Amino acid sequence: MRVSARNVFRGTVSALRPGSVNAEVELALGGSDRLVAIITMESVKSLGIATGSEVVALVKAPWVMVMTDAGDVRLSARNCLAGTVKSVAPGAVNAEVVITLASGTEVAAIVTKEAVGDLGLKPGVAATAVIKASHVVLGVPA
Amino acid sequence: MRVSARNVFRGTVSALRPGSVNAEVELALGGSDRLVAIITMESVKSLGIATGSEVVALVKAPWVMVMTDAGDVRLSARNCLAGTVKSVAPGAVNAEVVITLASGTEVAAIVTKEAVGDLGLKPGVAATAVIKASHVVLGVPA
Amino acid sequence: MRVSARNVFRGTVSALRPGSVNAEVELALGGSDRLVAIITMESVKSLGIATGSEVVALVKAPWVMVMTDAGDVRLSARNCLAGTVKSVAPGAVNAEVVITLASGTEVAAIVTKEAVGDLGLKPGVAATAVIKASHVVLGVPA
Repeated sequence: MRVSARNVFRGTVSALRPGSVNAEVELALGGSDRLVAIITMESVKSLGIATGSEVVALVKAPWVMVMTDAGDVRLSARNCLAGTVKSVAPGAVNAEVVITLASGTEVAAIVTKEAVGDLGLKPGVAATAVIKASHVVLGVPA
Repeated sequence: MRVSARNVFRGTVSALRPGSVNAEVELALGGSDRLVAIITMESVKSLGIATGSEVVALVKAPWVMVMTDAGDVRLSARNCLAGTVKSVAPGAVNAEVVITLASGTEVAAIVTKEAVGDLGLKPGVAATAVIKASHVVLGVPA
Repeated sequence: MRVSARNVFRGTVSALRPGSVNAEVELALGGSDRLVAIITMESVKSLGIATGSEVVALVKAPWVMVMTDAGDVRLSARNCLAGTVKSVAPGAVNAEVVITLASGTEVAAIVTKEAVGDLGLKPGVAATAVIKASHVVLGVPA
Protein backbone atom coordinates (compact mmCIF):
# COMPACT_ATOMS: atom_id res chain seq x y z
CA MET A 1 0.00 0.00 0.00
CA ARG A 2 1.10 3.53 -0.82
CA VAL A 3 -1.25 6.25 0.31
CA SER A 4 -1.57 10.01 -0.16
CA ALA A 5 -2.21 10.53 3.56
CA ARG A 6 0.86 12.24 5.02
CA ASN A 7 0.27 10.52 8.36
CA VAL A 8 0.61 6.75 8.51
CA PHE A 9 0.94 5.58 12.11
CA ARG A 10 1.68 1.95 13.05
CA GLY A 11 0.21 0.74 16.31
CA THR A 12 -1.45 -1.96 18.34
CA VAL A 13 -5.09 -1.90 19.45
CA SER A 14 -5.02 -1.27 23.21
CA ALA A 15 -8.79 -0.84 23.75
CA LEU A 16 -12.00 -1.38 21.78
CA ARG A 17 -15.33 0.15 22.84
CA PRO A 18 -18.21 -1.07 20.65
CA GLY A 19 -21.40 0.93 19.98
CA SER A 20 -24.44 0.26 17.83
CA VAL A 21 -23.13 1.78 14.57
CA ASN A 22 -19.65 2.98 15.52
CA ALA A 23 -16.83 1.73 17.74
CA GLU A 24 -14.01 3.57 19.43
CA VAL A 25 -10.59 1.97 18.88
CA GLU A 26 -7.58 3.05 20.95
CA LEU A 27 -4.09 2.43 19.57
CA ALA A 28 -0.72 2.40 21.32
CA LEU A 29 1.66 4.09 18.87
CA GLY A 30 4.94 3.59 20.67
CA GLY A 31 6.30 5.51 23.63
CA SER A 32 3.29 6.78 25.56
CA ASP A 33 1.51 8.08 22.44
CA ARG A 34 -2.09 6.98 22.05
CA LEU A 35 -4.40 7.51 19.08
CA VAL A 36 -8.18 7.02 19.23
CA ALA A 37 -10.18 6.21 16.08
CA ILE A 38 -13.92 5.97 15.54
CA ILE A 39 -14.80 3.46 12.86
CA THR A 40 -18.01 1.60 12.02
CA MET A 41 -18.83 -1.68 13.79
CA GLU A 42 -19.15 -3.11 10.25
CA SER A 43 -15.44 -2.32 9.75
CA VAL A 44 -14.47 -3.71 13.14
CA LYS A 45 -16.05 -7.01 12.09
CA SER A 46 -14.88 -7.12 8.46
CA LEU A 47 -11.29 -6.19 9.41
CA GLY A 48 -11.28 -8.52 12.41
CA ILE A 49 -10.06 -5.74 14.71
CA ALA A 50 -9.60 -6.83 18.34
CA THR A 51 -7.45 -5.85 21.30
CA GLY A 52 -3.85 -6.63 20.33
CA SER A 53 -4.39 -6.29 16.56
CA GLU A 54 -1.58 -4.62 14.61
CA VAL A 55 -3.06 -1.78 12.55
CA VAL A 56 -2.06 1.29 10.59
CA ALA A 57 -3.86 4.57 11.22
CA LEU A 58 -4.12 6.97 8.27
CA VAL A 59 -4.82 10.68 8.76
CA LYS A 60 -4.77 13.25 5.96
CA ALA A 61 -2.78 16.36 6.83
CA PRO A 62 -5.73 18.76 6.24
CA TRP A 63 -7.65 16.93 9.01
CA VAL A 64 -5.05 17.87 11.61
CA MET A 65 -5.55 21.08 13.59
CA VAL A 66 -2.60 22.78 15.31
CA MET A 67 -2.93 24.38 18.74
CA THR A 68 -0.48 26.34 20.89
CA ASP A 69 -0.84 27.67 24.45
CA ALA A 70 -3.20 24.78 25.13
CA GLY A 71 -3.09 25.12 28.91
CA ASP A 72 -6.45 26.84 29.29
CA VAL A 73 -8.68 24.55 27.25
CA ARG A 74 -9.81 20.94 27.00
CA LEU A 75 -11.09 19.68 23.63
CA SER A 76 -13.60 17.06 22.54
CA ALA A 77 -11.09 15.87 19.96
CA ARG A 78 -9.85 12.61 21.41
CA ASN A 79 -6.36 13.14 20.06
CA CYS A 80 -4.39 16.12 21.36
CA LEU A 81 -0.78 15.14 20.68
CA ALA A 82 1.78 17.48 22.24
CA GLY A 83 5.11 18.01 20.52
CA THR A 84 7.47 20.47 18.88
CA VAL A 85 7.28 22.05 15.42
CA LYS A 86 9.90 20.45 13.17
CA SER A 87 9.21 22.32 9.94
CA VAL A 88 6.86 24.77 8.21
CA ALA A 89 6.55 24.70 4.39
CA PRO A 90 4.43 27.59 3.11
CA GLY A 91 2.28 27.62 -0.04
CA ALA A 92 0.04 30.35 -1.48
CA VAL A 93 -2.93 29.86 0.89
CA ASN A 94 -1.86 26.91 3.04
CA ALA A 95 1.26 25.67 4.76
CA GLU A 96 2.38 22.21 5.80
CA VAL A 97 3.46 22.03 9.45
CA VAL A 98 5.26 18.96 10.82
CA ILE A 99 5.15 18.36 14.59
CA THR A 100 7.45 15.86 16.29
CA LEU A 101 5.92 14.11 19.32
CA ALA A 102 7.91 13.09 22.42
CA SER A 103 8.17 9.52 21.06
CA GLY A 104 9.67 10.77 17.79
CA THR A 105 6.47 10.19 15.80
CA GLU A 106 5.92 12.97 13.26
CA VAL A 107 2.49 14.45 12.52
CA ALA A 108 1.89 16.56 9.39
CA ALA A 109 -0.84 19.21 9.32
CA ILE A 110 -2.04 21.52 6.55
CA VAL A 111 -3.10 24.86 8.02
CA THR A 112 -3.63 28.31 6.49
CA LYS A 113 -0.62 30.61 6.16
CA GLU A 114 -2.58 33.07 8.29
CA ALA A 115 -2.63 30.50 11.12
CA VAL A 116 1.14 30.01 10.86
CA GLY A 117 1.55 33.73 11.55
CA ASP A 118 -1.11 33.93 14.27
CA LEU A 119 0.33 30.99 16.19
CA GLY A 120 3.97 31.90 15.53
CA LEU A 121 4.64 28.41 14.20
CA LYS A 122 8.32 27.81 13.43
CA PRO A 123 10.84 25.06 14.16
CA GLY A 124 11.30 24.53 17.90
CA VAL A 125 7.95 25.97 19.01
CA ALA A 126 5.79 23.77 21.29
CA ALA A 127 2.55 22.79 19.52
CA THR A 128 -0.25 20.27 19.81
CA ALA A 129 -1.65 18.28 16.88
CA VAL A 130 -5.41 17.88 17.28
CA ILE A 131 -7.07 14.98 15.43
CA LYS A 132 -10.75 14.02 15.67
CA ALA A 133 -11.20 10.30 16.28
CA SER A 134 -13.70 10.17 13.41
CA HIS A 135 -11.02 11.41 11.00
CA VAL A 136 -8.77 8.40 11.46
CA VAL A 137 -8.87 5.56 8.91
CA LEU A 138 -7.57 2.21 10.12
CA GLY A 139 -5.95 -0.47 7.98
CA VAL A 140 -4.99 -4.08 8.59
CA PRO A 141 -2.91 -6.47 6.45
CA ALA A 142 -5.03 -8.00 3.65
CA MET B 1 -5.37 28.63 23.50
CA ARG B 2 -4.39 29.66 19.99
CA VAL B 3 -5.52 27.31 17.26
CA SER B 4 -4.95 26.93 13.52
CA ALA B 5 -8.68 26.43 12.88
CA ARG B 6 -9.98 29.55 11.13
CA ASN B 7 -13.39 29.07 12.75
CA VAL B 8 -13.63 29.47 16.51
CA PHE B 9 -17.25 29.93 17.57
CA ARG B 10 -18.26 30.74 21.16
CA GLY B 11 -21.61 29.40 22.26
CA THR B 12 -23.79 27.84 24.94
CA VAL B 13 -25.03 24.25 24.86
CA SER B 14 -28.77 24.43 24.11
CA ALA B 15 -29.42 20.70 23.72
CA LEU B 16 -27.60 17.42 24.32
CA ARG B 17 -28.74 14.12 22.79
CA PRO B 18 -26.69 11.17 24.09
CA GLY B 19 -26.10 7.94 22.14
CA SER B 20 -24.09 4.81 22.87
CA VAL B 21 -20.72 6.00 21.48
CA ASN B 22 -21.50 9.51 20.21
CA ALA B 23 -23.64 12.41 21.38
CA GLU B 24 -25.18 15.29 19.47
CA VAL B 25 -24.55 18.68 21.06
CA GLU B 26 -26.47 21.76 19.89
CA LEU B 27 -24.96 25.21 20.52
CA ALA B 28 -26.60 28.63 20.47
CA LEU B 29 -24.01 30.91 18.84
CA GLY B 30 -25.70 34.28 19.26
CA GLY B 31 -28.56 35.71 17.24
CA SER B 32 -30.55 32.76 15.94
CA ASP B 33 -27.46 30.87 14.75
CA ARG B 34 -27.25 27.27 15.89
CA LEU B 35 -24.36 24.84 15.46
CA VAL B 36 -24.65 21.08 15.98
CA ALA B 37 -21.61 18.97 16.90
CA ILE B 38 -21.23 15.20 17.18
CA ILE B 39 -18.66 14.24 19.79
CA THR B 40 -17.99 11.02 21.67
CA MET B 41 -19.88 10.29 24.91
CA GLU B 42 -16.41 9.85 26.45
CA SER B 43 -15.73 13.53 25.66
CA VAL B 44 -19.13 14.64 26.94
CA LYS B 45 -18.24 13.06 30.28
CA SER B 46 -14.58 14.07 30.47
CA LEU B 47 -15.34 17.69 29.49
CA GLY B 48 -18.41 17.84 31.74
CA ILE B 49 -20.59 19.13 28.89
CA ALA B 50 -24.22 19.73 29.85
CA THR B 51 -27.07 21.99 28.77
CA GLY B 52 -25.98 25.55 29.55
CA SER B 53 -22.24 24.87 29.32
CA GLU B 54 -20.15 27.59 27.68
CA VAL B 55 -18.06 26.02 24.93
CA VAL B 56 -15.97 26.92 21.91
CA ALA B 57 -16.57 25.12 18.63
CA LEU B 58 -13.57 24.73 16.31
CA VAL B 59 -13.96 24.02 12.61
CA LYS B 60 -11.09 23.95 10.12
CA ALA B 61 -11.80 25.94 6.95
CA PRO B 62 -11.27 22.93 4.59
CA TRP B 63 -14.14 21.15 6.37
CA VAL B 64 -16.63 23.83 5.33
CA MET B 65 -18.53 23.37 2.06
CA VAL B 66 -20.07 26.37 0.30
CA MET B 67 -23.48 26.16 -1.40
CA THR B 68 -25.48 28.67 -3.43
CA ASP B 69 -29.02 28.44 -4.85
CA ALA B 70 -29.86 26.12 -1.97
CA GLY B 71 -33.63 26.35 -2.45
CA ASP B 72 -34.08 23.01 -4.16
CA VAL B 73 -32.20 20.74 -1.77
CA ARG B 74 -32.10 19.63 1.85
CA LEU B 75 -28.84 18.22 3.20
CA SER B 76 -27.90 15.69 5.88
CA ALA B 77 -25.26 18.10 7.12
CA ARG B 78 -26.75 19.43 10.33
CA ASN B 79 -25.25 22.87 9.83
CA CYS B 80 -26.40 24.87 6.80
CA LEU B 81 -25.60 28.46 7.78
CA ALA B 82 -26.99 31.05 5.37
CA GLY B 83 -25.12 34.32 4.87
CA THR B 84 -23.34 36.57 2.43
CA VAL B 85 -19.84 36.25 0.96
CA LYS B 86 -17.54 38.80 2.60
CA SER B 87 -14.28 37.99 0.82
CA VAL B 88 -12.58 35.56 -1.55
CA ALA B 89 -8.77 35.10 -1.37
CA PRO B 90 -7.50 32.90 -4.21
CA GLY B 91 -4.42 30.64 -4.13
CA ALA B 92 -3.01 28.32 -6.80
CA VAL B 93 -5.50 25.45 -6.36
CA ASN B 94 -7.68 26.63 -3.48
CA ALA B 95 -9.33 29.83 -2.32
CA GLU B 96 -10.42 31.02 1.12
CA VAL B 97 -14.03 32.22 1.17
CA VAL B 98 -15.41 34.10 4.18
CA ILE B 99 -19.20 34.13 4.68
CA THR B 100 -20.88 36.52 7.13
CA LEU B 101 -24.01 35.11 8.79
CA ALA B 102 -27.05 37.21 9.73
CA SER B 103 -25.77 37.46 13.31
CA GLY B 104 -22.42 38.83 12.16
CA THR B 105 -20.59 35.56 12.80
CA GLU B 106 -17.99 34.88 10.10
CA VAL B 107 -17.34 31.43 8.67
CA ALA B 108 -14.18 30.70 6.65
CA ALA B 109 -14.13 27.94 4.03
CA ILE B 110 -11.35 26.62 1.80
CA VAL B 111 -12.77 25.60 -1.57
CA THR B 112 -11.16 24.98 -4.97
CA LYS B 113 -10.67 27.95 -7.28
CA GLU B 114 -12.79 26.04 -9.80
CA ALA B 115 -15.70 26.12 -7.31
CA VAL B 116 -15.31 29.89 -6.83
CA GLY B 117 -15.87 30.29 -10.56
CA ASP B 118 -18.67 27.72 -10.84
CA LEU B 119 -20.63 29.26 -7.95
CA GLY B 120 -19.81 32.86 -8.87
CA LEU B 121 -18.54 33.52 -5.35
CA LYS B 122 -17.63 37.16 -4.75
CA PRO B 123 -18.36 39.74 -2.03
CA GLY B 124 -22.09 40.35 -1.63
CA VAL B 125 -23.30 37.02 -3.07
CA ALA B 126 -25.70 34.97 -0.93
CA ALA B 127 -24.09 31.68 0.12
CA THR B 128 -24.56 28.92 2.66
CA ALA B 129 -21.75 27.43 4.74
CA VAL B 130 -22.30 23.68 5.16
CA ILE B 131 -20.61 21.98 8.14
CA LYS B 132 -21.02 18.33 9.11
CA ALA B 133 -21.74 17.91 12.82
CA SER B 134 -18.97 15.32 13.04
CA HIS B 135 -16.42 17.89 11.84
CA VAL B 136 -16.88 20.19 14.83
CA VAL B 137 -14.41 20.01 17.73
CA LEU B 138 -15.68 21.37 21.06
CA GLY B 139 -13.57 22.94 23.78
CA VAL B 140 -14.23 23.94 27.37
CA PRO B 141 -12.07 25.97 29.80
CA ALA B 142 -9.42 23.79 31.43
CA MET C 1 -28.20 23.88 -5.74
CA ARG C 2 -24.64 24.71 -6.69
CA VAL C 3 -22.01 23.49 -4.27
CA SER C 4 -18.27 23.91 -3.81
CA ALA C 5 -17.81 20.18 -3.24
CA ARG C 6 -15.98 18.79 -6.28
CA ASN C 7 -17.75 15.45 -5.84
CA VAL C 8 -21.51 15.33 -6.35
CA PHE C 9 -22.70 11.77 -6.82
CA ARG C 10 -26.29 10.87 -7.74
CA GLY C 11 -27.59 7.58 -6.39
CA THR C 12 -30.37 5.51 -4.91
CA VAL C 13 -30.44 4.31 -1.31
CA SER C 14 -29.83 0.55 -1.46
CA ALA C 15 -29.57 -0.10 2.30
CA LEU C 16 -30.21 1.76 5.56
CA ARG C 17 -28.82 0.59 8.90
CA PRO C 18 -30.13 2.70 11.80
CA GLY C 19 -28.25 3.26 15.09
CA SER C 20 -29.01 5.32 18.16
CA VAL C 21 -27.43 8.61 17.00
CA ASN C 22 -26.12 7.75 13.54
CA ALA C 23 -27.27 5.64 10.61
CA GLU C 24 -25.33 4.02 7.81
CA VAL C 25 -26.78 4.68 4.36
CA GLU C 26 -25.61 2.71 1.33
CA LEU C 27 -26.08 4.19 -2.13
CA ALA C 28 -25.99 2.54 -5.56
CA LEU C 29 -24.19 5.05 -7.79
CA GLY C 30 -24.59 3.34 -11.16
CA GLY C 31 -22.64 0.39 -12.52
CA SER C 32 -21.48 -1.62 -9.52
CA ASP C 33 -20.23 1.43 -7.60
CA ARG C 34 -21.47 1.72 -4.03
CA LEU C 35 -21.01 4.62 -1.61
CA VAL C 36 -21.64 4.37 2.13
CA ALA C 37 -22.51 7.45 4.20
CA ILE C 38 -22.89 7.88 7.96
CA ILE C 39 -25.44 10.56 8.81
CA THR C 40 -27.39 11.32 11.97
CA MET C 41 -30.73 9.56 12.62
CA GLU C 42 -32.13 13.09 12.97
CA SER C 43 -31.21 13.70 9.32
CA VAL C 44 -32.59 10.34 8.19
CA LYS C 45 -35.94 11.38 9.67
CA SER C 46 -35.95 15.04 8.61
CA LEU C 47 -34.91 14.21 5.04
CA GLY C 48 -37.25 11.21 4.83
CA ILE C 49 -34.45 8.93 3.66
CA ALA C 50 -35.53 5.33 3.05
CA THR C 51 -34.50 2.42 0.84
CA GLY C 52 -35.14 3.49 -2.74
CA SER C 53 -34.79 7.25 -2.08
CA GLU C 54 -33.00 9.26 -4.77
CA VAL C 55 -30.21 11.26 -3.12
CA VAL C 56 -27.09 13.22 -3.95
CA ALA C 57 -23.88 12.52 -2.04
CA LEU C 58 -21.47 15.43 -1.59
CA VAL C 59 -17.80 14.91 -0.77
CA LYS C 60 -15.20 17.68 -0.65
CA ALA C 61 -12.02 16.85 -2.55
CA PRO C 62 -9.72 17.35 0.53
CA TRP C 63 -11.67 14.56 2.28
CA VAL C 64 -10.63 12.01 -0.33
CA MET C 65 -7.44 9.99 0.22
CA VAL C 66 -5.67 8.34 -2.70
CA MET C 67 -4.10 4.89 -2.44
CA THR C 68 -2.07 2.78 -4.87
CA ASP C 69 -0.78 -0.81 -4.58
CA ALA C 70 -3.77 -1.53 -2.35
CA GLY C 71 -3.44 -5.31 -2.55
CA ASP C 72 -1.82 -5.79 0.84
CA VAL C 73 -4.19 -3.81 3.05
CA ARG C 74 -7.86 -3.58 4.05
CA LEU C 75 -9.12 -0.23 5.40
CA SER C 76 -11.83 0.82 7.85
CA ALA C 77 -12.90 3.49 5.37
CA ARG C 78 -16.13 2.09 3.96
CA ASN C 79 -15.47 3.55 0.54
CA CYS C 80 -12.43 2.28 -1.38
CA LEU C 81 -13.27 3.07 -4.99
CA ALA C 82 -10.84 1.58 -7.50
CA GLY C 83 -10.19 3.39 -10.76
CA THR C 84 -7.61 5.07 -12.97
CA VAL C 85 -6.03 8.50 -12.63
CA LYS C 86 -7.51 10.84 -15.24
CA SER C 87 -5.63 14.04 -14.40
CA VAL C 88 -3.27 15.68 -11.89
CA ALA C 89 -3.34 19.48 -11.47
CA PRO C 90 -0.51 20.67 -9.20
CA GLY C 91 -0.54 23.77 -6.97
CA ALA C 92 2.13 25.11 -4.59
CA VAL C 93 1.52 22.65 -1.71
CA ASN C 94 -1.41 20.58 -2.95
CA ALA C 95 -2.56 18.96 -6.18
CA GLU C 96 -5.99 17.96 -7.46
CA VAL C 97 -6.15 14.36 -8.65
CA VAL C 98 -9.15 13.06 -10.60
CA ILE C 99 -9.79 9.31 -10.61
CA THR C 100 -12.22 7.69 -13.07
CA LEU C 101 -14.04 4.63 -11.69
CA ALA C 102 -15.01 1.61 -13.79
CA SER C 103 -18.55 3.00 -14.16
CA GLY C 104 -17.22 6.30 -15.51
CA THR C 105 -17.91 8.19 -12.28
CA GLU C 106 -15.13 10.69 -11.54
CA VAL C 107 -13.78 11.33 -8.04
CA ALA C 108 -11.67 14.41 -7.26
CA ALA C 109 -9.12 14.40 -4.44
CA ILE C 110 -6.83 17.10 -3.07
CA VAL C 111 -3.54 15.58 -1.94
CA THR C 112 -0.12 17.05 -1.24
CA LYS C 113 2.31 17.44 -4.14
CA GLU C 114 4.68 15.25 -2.15
CA ALA C 115 2.08 12.45 -2.29
CA VAL C 116 1.73 12.82 -6.05
CA GLY C 117 5.46 12.11 -6.35
CA ASP C 118 5.55 9.32 -3.76
CA LEU C 119 2.65 7.46 -5.37
CA GLY C 120 3.69 8.22 -8.96
CA LEU C 121 0.24 9.60 -9.73
CA LYS C 122 -0.21 10.50 -13.40
CA PRO C 123 -2.87 9.84 -16.03
CA GLY C 124 -3.42 6.13 -16.62
CA VAL C 125 -2.11 4.91 -13.25
CA ALA C 126 -4.39 2.59 -11.26
CA ALA C 127 -5.48 4.27 -8.00
CA THR C 128 -8.12 3.92 -5.31
CA ALA C 129 -10.13 6.82 -3.88
CA VAL C 130 -10.68 6.32 -0.16
CA ILE C 131 -13.63 8.13 1.46
CA LYS C 132 -14.72 7.77 5.09
CA ALA C 133 -18.47 7.18 5.37
CA SER C 134 -18.69 9.97 7.94
CA HIS C 135 -17.32 12.46 5.39
CA VAL C 136 -20.25 12.09 3.01
CA VAL C 137 -23.07 14.67 3.07
CA LEU C 138 -26.39 13.52 1.62
CA GLY C 139 -28.98 15.74 -0.05
CA VAL C 140 -32.57 15.19 -1.16
CA PRO C 141 -34.85 17.42 -3.26
CA ALA C 142 -36.44 20.15 -1.11
